[in-house]
Amino acid sequence: MNPVKVGIAGLGTVGSGTVNVLQRNAQEIARRVGRPIEIAHIGARRDNPDCDISGVRLSRDIFAVATDPDVDILVELIGGTDTARELVLTAIRNGKHIVTANKALIAEHGNEIFHAAHENGVDVAFEAAVAGGIPILKSLGEGLAANHINWVAGIINGTGNYILTEMEQGGRAFVDVLKEAQELGYAEADPTFDVEGVDAAHKLTIIASIAFGIPLQFSKVYMEGIGRITIEDVKSAAQFGYRIKHLGIARDTGNGIELRVHPTLIPIETMLSAVNGVMNAVMIDGDAVGPTMYYGAGAGAEPTASAVVADIIEMGRALTVDHEERVPYLGFHADQMSDERILTIDDVSCGFYLRLHVQDKPGVLADITRILSDNRISIEAMVQKETEEGLVPIVMMTHKVLEGDMNAALAKIAALDTVDKDIMRIRVETLDA
Amino acid sequence: MNPVKVGIAGLGTVGSGTVNVLQRNAQEIARRVGRPIEIAHIGARRDNPDCDISGVRLSRDIFAVATDPDVDILVELIGGTDTARELVLTAIRNGKHIVTANKALIAEHGNEIFHAAHENGVDVAFEAAVAGGIPILKSLGEGLAANHINWVAGIINGTGNYILTEMEQGGRAFVDVLKEAQELGYAEADPTFDVEGVDAAHKLTIIASIAFGIPLQFSKVYMEGIGRITIEDVKSAAQFGYRIKHLGIARDTGNGIELRVHPTLIPIETMLSAVNGVMNAVMIDGDAVGPTMYYGAGAGAEPTASAVVADIIEMGRALTVDHEERVPYLGFHADQMSDERILTIDDVSCGFYLRLHVQDKPGVLADITRILSDNRISIEAMVQKETEEGLVPIVMMTHKVLEGDMNAALAKIAALDTVDKDIMRIRVETLDA
Repeated sequence: MNPVKVGIAGLGTVGSGTVNVLQRNAQEIARRVGRPIEIAHIGARRDNPDCDISGVRLSRDIFAVATDPDVDILVELIGGTDTARELVLTAIRNGKHIVTANKALIAEHGNEIFHAAHENGVDVAFEAAVAGGIPILKSLGEGLAANHINWVAGIINGTGNYILTEMEQGGRAFVDVLKEAQELGYAEADPTFDVEGVDAAHKLTIIASIAFGIPLQFSKVYMEGIGRITIEDVKSAAQFGYRIKHLGIARDTGNGIELRVHPTLIPIETMLSAVNGVMNAVMIDGDAVGPTMYYGAGAGAEPTASAVVADIIEMGRALTVDHEERVPYLGFHADQMSDERILTIDDVSCGFYLRLHVQDKPGVLADITRILSDNRISIEAMVQKETEEGLVPIVMMTHKVLEGDMNAALAKIAALDTVDKDIMRIRVETLDA
Repeated sequence: MNPVKVGIAGLGTVGSGTVNVLQRNAQEIARRVGRPIEIAHIGARRDNPDCDISGVRLSRDIFAVATDPDVDILVELIGGTDTARELVLTAIRNGKHIVTANKALIAEHGNEIFHAAHENGVDVAFEAAVAGGIPILKSLGEGLAANHINWVAGIINGTGNYILTEMEQGGRAFVDVLKEAQELGYAEADPTFDVEGVDAAHKLTIIASIAFGIPLQFSKVYMEGIGRITIEDVKSAAQFGYRIKHLGIARDTGNGIELRVHPTLIPIETMLSAVNGVMNAVMIDGDAVGPTMYYGAGAGAEPTASAVVADIIEMGRALTVDHEERVPYLGFHADQMSDERILTIDDVSCGFYLRLHVQDKPGVLADITRILSDNRISIEAMVQKETEEGLVPIVMMTHKVLEGDMNAALAKIAALDTVDKDIMRIRVETLDA
């Protein structure tokens, strides 16, 4: 089938991430959309060595992408508000659908852009503008659409959360951590947008509109930054049972809507308080569903590209098929199912927790460890428990091992006269990304 | 505009929750869809006092709903697999779109149902079948569609998680907690489906298909329950730095796909290990986005209804408008924006954390507390810190207070000769649902 043709304006961090994800996962994406997605035209003032765009039409004038008749979807990734606004409005007038990661553009000029899009019958998508790769706008506007939303509270600026986490965990001062964050590339040379809460306020503006069905009203967001928080405050908060997080909060009070971004003490046992470093998380309280939370990377080349490309896929689906299969029943099209085999449990590798009860005799432990090592199983930790009864409980953790090897070893161990046949084993997963 | 007409089969817990959510949020839902959603016909063997269905056509024969020419969408909430399968296939042959919360039906008969739906040009949606109100299937199949999914690991059975949480936090034995869960209504009289992992395996089957683009293959899921876990295991795991959770895991190894449900040790510092009680959470690792997590209520009348009604809304949108505004730009339709006012920060009520530096003199604290009480501010906790310098730091937490009152009080306190003008204040949010 004919490819969906995408034009990308801007080839910085997110632009190159978007090119890389579209290229690397091209086959899987085509199975989801029902036809390929092709990068037809890139507009960028300079090249980016982080991605390979050989064979793609390249213009130094980004407006050439917005007016290219060969482009179905314009992906705006130049950032800023003035040129981006003009570019997007030009593309809309030229009948292009818009995908953007630009929170400032949507928060400050969204009402105008949506009006123009409506007039021209095109779609505008901006999942990447809020919380990077977390599909928070889709969850709020579609997944929770049955609910009256009571409130939304989010850690929606990774830089700020990184600084607060380092202050808490390392006992370090704000200025020290900020300097380090700038060196690591987490914070801009001019950190105002992150540290004063402007970036979070842009995102909160968008969240609130989708939560409550109100126009975008960035100028009404109350903003307070994290620059005045001291180590003393972080420690005192902990004494009271709280952690300090920089939150964006939108709440329907029944008597008007609160829109505010400020440092906030939240109870240490809440899920949000466990969100550390540059990670983002948004908690939403709906009248039917209760509290739900969405967690993930809020920035970075590929996490942001994940959301940009998801928006492209959604538009590609809308341009492709009848509504009943706009999103295929199982995400992939029925004729694109894979016959990849399902492994049996014997083929799975896991660490194991083992609990055995053995006779308190010399040589028993030696027998067990020999059987384990004969079956390629190495022990990571072991504790011999105290007991007043006849049999001694031994608890151990193993390194990763094939399930089949573990079964063979346990059968031999259970056959020892000195070991109780009832051996407990539980698999271990470290959930590393 | 003409309403979207919904027929509901089954009026148990989820059925009555669905009726209540559709009725209570009817106005907000119509603003999202672009036209009202009407319950045109209910099929139920008996009434349910938990909802008011006066004025709705009611049949004791649920098949009357599936064949009613007045119904656009059949909502299957009867549960089980045999009659539900027949009902859904009948409705599909009669041109109805399908919404269902039935995980067993989709996991075991989904391939057949999707084939019939495709032949008849209708849609089938089943967000409520997995993790209740959490929009996990939408996040996986749409929000993360740009990614090659590496693995998914989820706490997807609330009963099992409740039992493990109680064992850990209360030091209680499995059988005791199970009995209590049955009395509280968290566990069925026959707990096999929950405790042996069948329920989680149904959900994992669906998750894996959407993650990897493979057909539904319930029979290949490895299943192990939580019945053999002892308090000793829970305590030993904690000693090693782990918690025991009952996880469903689907992983693409590059050499086949793992599908397994079993008790699992996970490191205590992971987000999943903080998920307690009946709550559900699913962690997804995608190649572009990295790890993301989705948390919320996995069962219950209204959380499940939240997902059922979201699917109805999505179908209503598809039946209503052109694709470019299938989902309105801001979730609500442009002519349905609300002009609800945005509050100024003075109108917001919060608890406050305050840090002041005061002279170590008699009467200073009395002056401060009097000013606070004069402004309707009551103190929840206070700590006077030790110091070697001249001024003594005082840290306090207040109960909820209007921002305007706090500002007035702080202005007066800062004007005292005995108090340093640089007063730190941070707002407190408890994030209660």
